Amino acid sequence: MSRILLLGAGRSASSLITYLLQHAPTEGWQLTVADVNPAHLLPVLAAHRAYARAVPFDIQREELLDELVPAADIVISMLPALLHLPVARACVRHGRHLVTASYVSEEMRGLDAEARAAGVLILMECGLDPGLDHMSAMQALGHIRARGGQLTAFKSYCGGLMAPASEGDNPWRYKFTWNPRNVVLAGQSTAKFLEHGHPRFIPYQQLFARTEMLDVPGYGQFEGYANRDSLSYRAPYGLDDIPTILRGTLRRPGYCAAWQALVRLGLTDDSVHLGNSAAMTWAQLLASYLPVGKTETSLPQQLAAYLGLEANGAEMQRLQWLGLFTETPVGLADATPAQLLERLLTTRWALEPGDQDMIVMQHLFAFEADGRMFQRTSSLVVLGDDATHTAMAKTVGLPVAMAVRRLAQGKILHRGVVIPTHVDLYEPILAELAADYGIAFVEHEQALR
Amino acid sequence: MSRILLLGAGRSASSLITYLLQHAPTEGWQLTVADVNPAHLLPVLAAHRAYARAVPFDIQREELLDELVPAADIVISMLPALLHLPVARACVRHGRHLVTASYVSEEMRGLDAEARAAGVLILMECGLDPGLDHMSAMQALGHIRARGGQLTAFKSYCGGLMAPASEGDNPWRYKFTWNPRNVVLAGQSTAKFLEHGHPRFIPYQQLFARTEMLDVPGYGQFEGYANRDSLSYRAPYGLDDIPTILRGTLRRPGYCAAWQALVRLGLTDDSVHLGNSAAMTWAQLLASYLPVGKTETSLPQQLAAYLGLEANGAEMQRLQWLGLFTETPVGLADATPAQLLERLLTTRWALEPGDQDMIVMQHLFAFEADGRMFQRTSSLVVLGDDATHTAMAKTVGLPVAMAVRRLAQGKILHRGVVIPTHVDLYEPILAELAADYGIAFVEHEQALR
Repeated sequence: MSRILLLGAGRSASSLITYLLQHAPTEGWQLTVADVNPAHLLPVLAAHRAYARAVPFDIQREELLDELVPAADIVISMLPALLHLPVARACVRHGRHLVTASYVSEEMRGLDAEARAAGVLILMECGLDPGLDHMSAMQALGHIRARGGQLTAFKSYCGGLMAPASEGDNPWRYKFTWNPRNVVLAGQSTAKFLEHGHPRFIPYQQLFARTEMLDVPGYGQFEGYANRDSLSYRAPYGLDDIPTILRGTLRRPGYCAAWQALVRLGLTDDSVHLGNSAAMTWAQLLASYLPVGKTETSLPQQLAAYLGLEANGAEMQRLQWLGLFTETPVGLADATPAQLLERLLTTRWALEPGDQDMIVMQHLFAFEADGRMFQRTSSLVVLGDDATHTAMAKTVGLPVAMAVRRLAQGKILHRGVVIPTHVDLYEPILAELAADYGIAFVEHEQALR
Repeated sequence: MSRILLLGAGRSASSLITYLLQHAPTEGWQLTVADVNPAHLLPVLAAHRAYARAVPFDIQREELLDELVPAADIVISMLPALLHLPVARACVRHGRHLVTASYVSEEMRGLDAEARAAGVLILMECGLDPGLDHMSAMQALGHIRARGGQLTAFKSYCGGLMAPASEGDNPWRYKFTWNPRNVVLAGQSTAKFLEHGHPRFIPYQQLFARTEMLDVPGYGQFEGYANRDSLSYRAPYGLDDIPTILRGTLRRPGYCAAWQALVRLGLTDDSVHLGNSAAMTWAQLLASYLPVGKTETSLPQQLAAYLGLEANGAEMQRLQWLGLFTETPVGLADATPAQLLERLLTTRWALEPGDQDMIVMQHLFAFEADGRMFQRTSSLVVLGDDATHTAMAKTVGLPVAMAVRRLAQGKILHRGVVIPTHVDLYEPILAELAADYGIAFVEHEQALR
């Protein structure tokens, strides 16, 4: 019997919980779900009370960890990433394994030796991005290496978007399926990557103007913008000498050019409080960003002229659709531009009942084998099942859950701070995702010459 | 007899020290100059040893303050602004007055009640900017108010520049006379001001593209860009209801457009370390910021095309003059773009022997009086005397020194945290600056209708 403790049961934990409940009877698990608000779990757990219970949990009360952690064999943390460190420390202290879907922080990496000494596995970056990206990239790289391929380029893009049927009349073809604040502040530092052996830097003010177009079979075109630091992926992927490496984020075509207009306007700045009143309207706010203009032209015309956009072009249509030129109050006093924009977007980009989300991931490889150049793409599209089991929840939660199952079965022997770039970790998870959930990458390869 | 303690005797304290030494015998002062490196002061103080001495001082050793401060009647701090707080606390603790040329921080303002209770004056913002700006603006405002004028606009610009004869062939017409890092990072937050009753916001990415041209009689044209927060000047100047208020920084025409190119390129970003080698050349670094270009065009041509600049235009000439397209190594490993740019600029914008600096300040007022609209400018130009008594050192140090003299004479009765917006503080200082140093504002007024 394994005792499994899940810390944090928010939206993105739904598929994880379903998986754990489904396998608990056959695997002989006792499941404890600890959440700040356990009431919402009761109906879910009711049918499983023989092996599952919910308990209240408050991360502010760290002493609770010293009750809950030793009473479990494996701990899963779906808490916000910043809260993982005390959990990991408790796991090392009590000799319990930990699995999360979050990035390894510097402090977390510092626990490696201690965790090894305690015989503890801290398996991180085991969700979607990070998680499935590592697993699928390493699998494809493994196949290429197995036939003697020499990598010359690796690009990897991922995006949390809407299923085509749920895009509606939203010209951005985007809604929030993840932390809105992170979306608003995305890219506010110079992006670093490598191209043909040369370092490449793109500063924030150019980032959304320098995108790449991608094609995902069956789903059309997407555009990708570069993530902050692509270089850090070289070492863990064994690609230290690769001439081209880029990690990026996917949006539907046109999103980035319109977002660039918001960036240039100044609406994504989070470093200044505007001293505005909550009653200030969006039209007034926009006017505040424009030089004093000719009074005979309309606000949208002035804005288009200021930014050098076509008055009725695609960017202006997207800005107009957001309601930037209306007399709607901004609604927050003395806020930063980014806070005001986030508030507006959470109304305009809100999920509606019945909306289906979509995860898209694509890796692009270029390699040489047998004296020929090859290009290979590996693409994944996952659609949400329903409002609970979204594509986001499935792709974040299921890899975590599957890793936990194999850990409980004694099949994972790694110790210390580990990410799933190891073949014995990713192969079974990718196989189970494909066989039982249809979450599978489509590979496409062509010889270039 | 007054005992005066000066903490910090760097470059900008030269004129302050000269003034103190000059008046010490007649005013009956005993002067202690405390500096981290007092050796350089010995030749200066040698002829004044009857009433002046130098002592070593290390701000890290706060206990030294409890020796030095109680042994003085008035403390002057010319230390970096961040170090003033422990000094102010020691002054309150020991009941000693403090004078500085730095902005009042929130923490410093928090000492107001305590200082009043202890009968201590903490006179801040008593240098150039802040300092002379307050004094001269309040004086001019006082004159306008005295004749019943109703203010409708107040703009105030200041810049530390080079005297025309020292600009040489430098197309930027600028050299560093102040903290280079602050110049490189200037404006990296949305600027806020008021125009015709409407709030105006300019984000960093537009700031250097939205300048105003000013004319200073006898010295030609200057361009001004808006400072971070102009709104905070309303209350201290008694201008709570003024429709237009702007504070800005002056440069010579063309500087801002060329700086805007550096901003758009990404070279002023201080938030990312590039992982570059110190041997990377400037041409290589620049190339890293450009999209992969046509190989048949030169780097400057690619850059001009990327930024939409004329290939041989004024901006490109300024970039070229900096050496951005040369094979000179950037010289710092894993640095931020801003650090690399600062390193380059400190060589290209270095003062040469014999260089003469120049301080320019201009206030622009619009007001209504007797049913007519008036425009009034108040302009100051100060040239450096020599490499020691620069315009910067004179305009920062002399107002502080003059305030100290009057304080020692018992003529300043304010207590608590104060800035020189009070007529009894600024009138004598402005009069002395004009009479003894020729540091005087030139007023110009015209009726508009």
